[in-house]
Amino acid sequence: MGAKLLTICAAGLLVSGCLKEKPKDRSAESVQQIRQLLDQWAKAFEAKDVDGVMAVYAPGAALTAYDIVPPLQYKGANSYRKDYADFFAQFNGPLHVQIADDHLEVSGDLAVDYSLEHITGTMKDGKPADLWLRATSVFKRIAGKWLDIHDHISVPADMTTGKARLDLKP
Amino acid sequence: MGAKLLTICAAGLLVSGCLKEKPKDRSAESVQQIRQLLDQWAKAFEAKDVDGVMAVYAPGAALTAYDIVPPLQYKGANSYRKDYADFFAQFNGPLHVQIADDHLEVSGDLAVDYSLEHITGTMKDGKPADLWLRATSVFKRIAGKWLDIHDHISVPADMTTGKARLDLKP
Repeated sequence: MGAKLLTICAAGLLVSGCLKEKPKDRSAESVQQIRQLLDQWAKAFEAKDVDGVMAVYAPGAALTAYDIVPPLQYKGANSYRKDYADFFAQFNGPLHVQIADDHLEVSGDLAVDYSLEHITGTMKDGKPADLWLRATSVFKRIAGKWLDIHDHISVPADMTTGKARLDLKP
Repeated sequence: MGAKLLTICAAGLLVSGCLKEKPKDRSAESVQQIRQLLDQWAKAFEAKDVDGVMAVYAPGAALTAYDIVPPLQYKGANSYRKDYADFFAQFNGPLHVQIADDHLEVSGDLAVDYSLEHITGTMKDGKPADLWLRATSVFKRIAGKWLDIHDHISVPADMTTGKARLDLKP
């Protein structure tokens, strides 16, 4: 009877261990961790804090970003860091970011967030900046930690005039 | 002894059942299914087959796309279908698509593919079209079937001239 009880307990432990590995059982925790990462990014972005922003991203070659400005792609964290620094250098004072129509999908060790971003601030020459972007970010759990491995940031293009549509609103 | 063996077998079954649910054990199959979906999309796109293209996407409100052309977002499969039909109507004969620097990430019921896409063809007025895009697509396994729930397609913008950079190459 003692041995049988032990076997049942061991089976119970194994099953409970398996359940912990199932993506659905960890998804609420993952959603919370990714929401924290998105908040961390927004706070650092508004403060034009390059180190704070880059803490959200995967290091080295694990990151590939498609930004609103050329080139077609930023390969690796170092090139994307320079892109952020160049962007922040164009503004006086803090930036403000507002998110609309946000979608968050999480499964296992992968997550995707996509939304419209409203960015406002003041350029170095004193002119106001006011821009709605489309933003898609991909997060991967690497060694237990969620990190952004891919950003895609853009505005649509008018194919007739060749203009970037920097004036659109949702 | 008979009862104990039964208990161990039951534990074994439970554990093997649990392992089947772990994302890593199904990821090779998922990768293959998503590669098939990407091939299916490319074939339909080159043939300007709207129904074939849309078979890859989630129906109804499950789809949100950020395309190269305005507006900021296409909400739902019907609006994205019209966008594809309008795009295909601008070309004579088939299109050609070439993929570069492709990344595919899969975990559980979620997958993301991002790459540079080279699209070539002939416009209705006989002029050649030759364009490199950035393409990010998000796939979700819905009721056992992988479907595209989000596309983000763009070119970078030159913030000084306000031009969409339709001339970039990787």
